[in-house]
Amino acid sequence: MKAFLKLQKKNKEDKFICVGLDSDPGKLPHHFKKDKSSILDFNRSIIEATSQFAAAYKINFAFYEKYGSSGLDILKQTLELIPGDILTIGDAKRGDIGNTSKYYAESLFEYFGFDSITINPYMGEDSVKPFLEYSDKLIFILALTSNPGANDFEKLQLKDGSYFFQKVIEKVRLWNDNNNCGIVFGATNLKELQENIAGFDNLPVLLPGVGTQGGNFEDIMNVFIQQGKLNLLVNISRGIIYKDNSAGFAETAKGEITQLNNLVKKLLTK
Amino acid sequence: MKAFLKLQKKNKEDKFICVGLDSDPGKLPHHFKKDKSSILDFNRSIIEATSQFAAAYKINFAFYEKYGSSGLDILKQTLELIPGDILTIGDAKRGDIGNTSKYYAESLFEYFGFDSITINPYMGEDSVKPFLEYSDKLIFILALTSNPGANDFEKLQLKDGSYFFQKVIEKVRLWNDNNNCGIVFGATNLKELQENIAGFDNLPVLLPGVGTQGGNFEDIMNVFIQQGKLNLLVNISRGIIYKDNSAGFAETAKGEITQLNNLVKKLLTK
Repeated sequence: MKAFLKLQKKNKEDKFICVGLDSDPGKLPHHFKKDKSSILDFNRSIIEATSQFAAAYKINFAFYEKYGSSGLDILKQTLELIPGDILTIGDAKRGDIGNTSKYYAESLFEYFGFDSITINPYMGEDSVKPFLEYSDKLIFILALTSNPGANDFEKLQLKDGSYFFQKVIEKVRLWNDNNNCGIVFGATNLKELQENIAGFDNLPVLLPGVGTQGGNFEDIMNVFIQQGKLNLLVNISRGIIYKDNSAGFAETAKGEITQLNNLVKKLLTK
Repeated sequence: MKAFLKLQKKNKEDKFICVGLDSDPGKLPHHFKKDKSSILDFNRSIIEATSQFAAAYKINFAFYEKYGSSGLDILKQTLELIPGDILTIGDAKRGDIGNTSKYYAESLFEYFGFDSITINPYMGEDSVKPFLEYSDKLIFILALTSNPGANDFEKLQLKDGSYFFQKVIEKVRLWNDNNNCGIVFGATNLKELQENIAGFDNLPVLLPGVGTQGGNFEDIMNVFIQQGKLNLLVNISRGIIYKDNSAGFAETAKGEITQLNNLVKKLLTK
């Protein structure tokens, strides 16, 4: 199924939570061995407990690459545990000159088989295009990120008065011939979200930054609900997977995501 | 040895060529099997033929990641073939929020053991800092890249009249407390190089884009020689490793790099 339709189907079921599998052995519940051998079991428990309620799973490559090739094997095995109707996002933020991006796209879409990925637009159109040629996939392009460093470059004001991240969004709209582009917009930027959401057109939005980083889920959902734009994913990693350090961690994760889904239903009927 | 000193030592021997190991089975000399099983043998031959003459080797991650975990094993085995006195560059262009960049840094510097890497500055200071904490390493930060897409964002003019890539270079100078920063500046941007080189301070420069992409080696070297700034690497990938499709490819690669080194000696004594 086209990745965009997978997302749309979940969104129509009022599911907007993307569970971030930033699985770090040092932070796993106390009964897990604190090394890479625990990651797959932990991921399996989280996926089994939350897959009925999640709109997507996002796998952050760094947490697996730190173990080299064996980490990539764990990543691939994790991906195989995710039910086929749920969108998978390879959060790798790749981007390079054309002939190189082509191979990153092969890695993410063909070797790993992700439905969707994040990419970094710094190097411009020819660095992005090889990913966009996969018309059934969904490519979330970094626009405004959730971290403090977003102030350094992304929020620079340009000569024409607009801001750098706005120029990126403008380009993404132009690159969207295959209807397979989305944007990453940090949930910590509530004001910028309110001011810019009208310009997102129909681009799906991936919003990291809720929880530890300071973004508020309810505020974010309200902005999208008010605009009547409901193709989005709010990523939550630490707030779901590390909420409980006990053997009941998976039940707690399920409880967290259920509670967030219930909150969405309440907001939608207000 | 501190990575910067490794570079400096080679530069003082008038060696400026970085050999890019963008090893693609489809492009290997005709007697190689056209699959991943050939990559390590090919890389070994190239390294053995050129290591006396090279200033550095750059490994482009995409060409290995496309094979998943087995590709990373080939990458790591390749790295072990490079003599210890020659700078190794992991060209992975990573960058993410702080806790994620930390793990990318662990992957590149601790698991793989690269001397040096390339990173993408899009997400700003906290995305860059975890890499810079490795004070013995050398971190080349993308400033102005060699590809056509550099026009899309990197060359945007800011409100204060400067260009986006100039703002990146300005930040890199500020981030250089550990004397372990460098910049990536595409060899296809000769005019911008001439206009901006004075502002590079003592940052080492990695210049991709000579050859297939259109940059001219002699022109680039002349700019640096005229400025008396000689901490640099000119990356050449396809122009060295794929110059010859016959069984004599390694000798040809050696011939190419020797010829370039001789040209440098001539330019330096002019």
